[in-house]
Amino acid sequence: MKITGTFIDEISHDIPHQNWGREEWDRDFGYMKAVGIDTVIMIRSGYRRFITYPSAYLQQNFGCYEPPVDLVQMYLELAEKHGLKFYFGLYDSGHYWDTGNLQSEIDANRYVIDEVWKQYGHFKSFGGWYLSMEISRKTKGATEAFRTLGQQCKDVSGGLPTFISPWIDGKKAVMAATSQLSKEDAVSLRQHEEEWSEIFSGLHGSVDAVAFQDGHIDYHELEDFFAVNKKMADQFGLQCWTNAESFDRDMPIKFLPIKFEKLRLKLEAARKAGYDKAITFEFSHFMSPQSAYLQAGHLYNRYKEYLQSLR
Amino acid sequence: MKITGTFIDEISHDIPHQNWGREEWDRDFGYMKAVGIDTVIMIRSGYRRFITYPSAYLQQNFGCYEPPVDLVQMYLELAEKHGLKFYFGLYDSGHYWDTGNLQSEIDANRYVIDEVWKQYGHFKSFGGWYLSMEISRKTKGATEAFRTLGQQCKDVSGGLPTFISPWIDGKKAVMAATSQLSKEDAVSLRQHEEEWSEIFSGLHGSVDAVAFQDGHIDYHELEDFFAVNKKMADQFGLQCWTNAESFDRDMPIKFLPIKFEKLRLKLEAARKAGYDKAITFEFSHFMSPQSAYLQAGHLYNRYKEYLQSLR
Amino acid sequence: MKITGTFIDEISHDIPHQNWGREEWDRDFGYMKAVGIDTVIMIRSGYRRFITYPSAYLQQNFGCYEPPVDLVQMYLELAEKHGLKFYFGLYDSGHYWDTGNLQSEIDANRYVIDEVWKQYGHFKSFGGWYLSMEISRKTKGATEAFRTLGQQCKDVSGGLPTFISPWIDGKKAVMAATSQLSKEDAVSLRQHEEEWSEIFSGLHGSVDAVAFQDGHIDYHELEDFFAVNKKMADQFGLQCWTNAESFDRDMPIKFLPIKFEKLRLKLEAARKAGYDKAITFEFSHFMSPQSAYLQAGHLYNRYKEYLQSLR
Repeated sequence: MKITGTFIDEISHDIPHQNWGREEWDRDFGYMKAVGIDTVIMIRSGYRRFITYPSAYLQQNFGCYEPPVDLVQMYLELAEKHGLKFYFGLYDSGHYWDTGNLQSEIDANRYVIDEVWKQYGHFKSFGGWYLSMEISRKTKGATEAFRTLGQQCKDVSGGLPTFISPWIDGKKAVMAATSQLSKEDAVSLRQHEEEWSEIFSGLHGSVDAVAFQDGHIDYHELEDFFAVNKKMADQFGLQCWTNAESFDRDMPIKFLPIKFEKLRLKLEAARKAGYDKAITFEFSHFMSPQSAYLQAGHLYNRYKEYLQSLR
Repeated sequence: MKITGTFIDEISHDIPHQNWGREEWDRDFGYMKAVGIDTVIMIRSGYRRFITYPSAYLQQNFGCYEPPVDLVQMYLELAEKHGLKFYFGLYDSGHYWDTGNLQSEIDANRYVIDEVWKQYGHFKSFGGWYLSMEISRKTKGATEAFRTLGQQCKDVSGGLPTFISPWIDGKKAVMAATSQLSKEDAVSLRQHEEEWSEIFSGLHGSVDAVAFQDGHIDYHELEDFFAVNKKMADQFGLQCWTNAESFDRDMPIKFLPIKFEKLRLKLEAARKAGYDKAITFEFSHFMSPQSAYLQAGHLYNRYKEYLQSLR
Repeated sequence: MKITGTFIDEISHDIPHQNWGREEWDRDFGYMKAVGIDTVIMIRSGYRRFITYPSAYLQQNFGCYEPPVDLVQMYLELAEKHGLKFYFGLYDSGHYWDTGNLQSEIDANRYVIDEVWKQYGHFKSFGGWYLSMEISRKTKGATEAFRTLGQQCKDVSGGLPTFISPWIDGKKAVMAATSQLSKEDAVSLRQHEEEWSEIFSGLHGSVDAVAFQDGHIDYHELEDFFAVNKKMADQFGLQCWTNAESFDRDMPIKFLPIKFEKLRLKLEAARKAGYDKAITFEFSHFMSPQSAYLQAGHLYNRYKEYLQSLR
């Protein structure tokens, strides 16, 4: 199973910034391309007051800071140069998921979608939309928001594809800013299927693919959960992608690059389940030869050897 | 706002050591100089049993270990070579702030100040003193200690300048050795002003500058707190510096280099408030091209671009 | 006190993986050799489902994953090439220490010992066995297991040496996956001696050396604990080694390389106590010039200077 897409973690919640400029990003897109990545997904266009492009709307209405660089334009230009597709991740005000004020979040993003498409829609590298709200079974009420925003993304852009990347509420679904590594009250396979079937049934064609994060369950649980995910995706007409996390959730340092053996187990499980595509969170910190975490460069080499062994 | 000073974090409480020798420090002082740094501040001369110079007094009276290198002498020599001013940070026995035994801490440092000036006062790079006790509003009783020690530093050295670097008791004022990132009971702007006015009024010319740490409040709070700090500093005849933290307090890994955009926000806020000088905690881990954290080298480059944009 | 052995931390509990291939390990064995290391100890041959060699037994009986590389063979070959002795660490199912099911753990390892010796015993670099269960005073019941397994290792291999590496239940004996750095209820020197004398008296020649981990007590406690350890080792006919931890237990990031000054204090204490040998946990992350933690390379240089100063 080859990784053909990666998130770009700007703005990040929990991964320290690498402080790269255009030169480093240009080089990184080249490293991605060299291992078969064809899609880059900007994980969110903003979080609370930090934003990735100089949005007049967000600065006026949410008190956002003027960004030092227009990252959206830069990524679109570099994607064009390297022949990659760029997916735009929606804005997250931070208030929505805290207070349940769904309508306000939807309204904000309706402006953002229009603003962004008007400003950047002409780039031929603009390839799709990422509905950036990371939900799990506890936020089922968000289905309606997904449907509304997904539909608007498609309408404004002539039907460009949309996707979501939720997490499985497994034993490793703990907050990054705690020292815990696992919890007791993990979801069962049956509950997972029931609850996500309900969510998927509410999407009605507004979302094209679902890429469950693969890091919250144990390695021997992958096969069962992946089979259920594929079954549900088929049933509701979604593409089934895997979001193969390339960082290690089992270590006290939160987070450094994953041990290759673990990544391989997860990719093999996705292959066996017949998944359509693998993307990763994320290449630039955890798999790049120029990452500040030097383990990432070695992971890149191990992954290249794995690709060769697949031929 | 240009950073013209940096702490040197020897002995450290919470930042893992880089194990540099003289060669690395020599090179680092060169990197500092190249971006306009003219002042290096050794954050403390010792903490509990670990010390930076072979103090007979501290070894005999506090059971301190003989240090493998005389860092004070090395820093003074390298500062002389590179044309930097060196500030000496006082000793912290660790007992004082734990038990409130102020007098013992004052007595220890009275010896240290004499010993150090006798041994190293002839270096023309010896430029000042740092009163290393990091206090906040909860340690108002320490004002007297600051005044006594600051006065002694000035008396013994012919009036060399002294400064303090307290923290604002904001939402991010949490212990490093917890997994928390923020707390609920942050100080209000009004309380901050009342309490620090009282502290500053007790210093009576024994302290020349105050460099509040800038990392414990949120970015949108900077403007208000900085305005109050400047007003108080003016009122009590202190220079108003900012201690611009170059590490990121918002991430689960405690601590890696800060995202440049955040550092820029803080420096800009200090500039707008009319601050006199910016120092950082600290260059060698978080901004140096040779830091073990490679993000630091990229931060150095981004900061250099920022300096060029100011011209 | 010269470090002449190092653990190899595969499979790791708490140190993120470096994703090295054969080339990096080959180079690392060279770096080890260059500073006088003659022994490499694979810390465990497996933990729960992850294993280091393609054991038919463990895959069938414990659901272990097939490893991507036969690390045991690779290490034995590289040890042979570089003239090092390789110690094999036993398998840890993870169930034993959790549930107290001693007999099952013993049985598993009886198979592993036979399997491994049959498959790899012909390597002349196969130098000994490491009884990988890390016990402390709270697992005194494990003495019998140590004796049984140690004896079997020796019987099957014509008497190759065996050792254990327990920890002292000192103030820094806290779990890696918590944010704590120390605890209150540390063991006293007297209790330590009583309890370990009892354990050692039960080993009856099945274990040749004990290498207490040196990182759980404070630096000024080293002398007293080391003296007791040496006395007990002499009394019960064990070689007394020190396991000099080269990572720093005093920092919020768990774990990065130790400050050289601290390592030196620990090695000097072992020398003064007349210890027989020093090994470290572990070279490749914390002391290697090619470690992903660049502080490690500087520690390597500081350690080399220390070796030269001993001549």
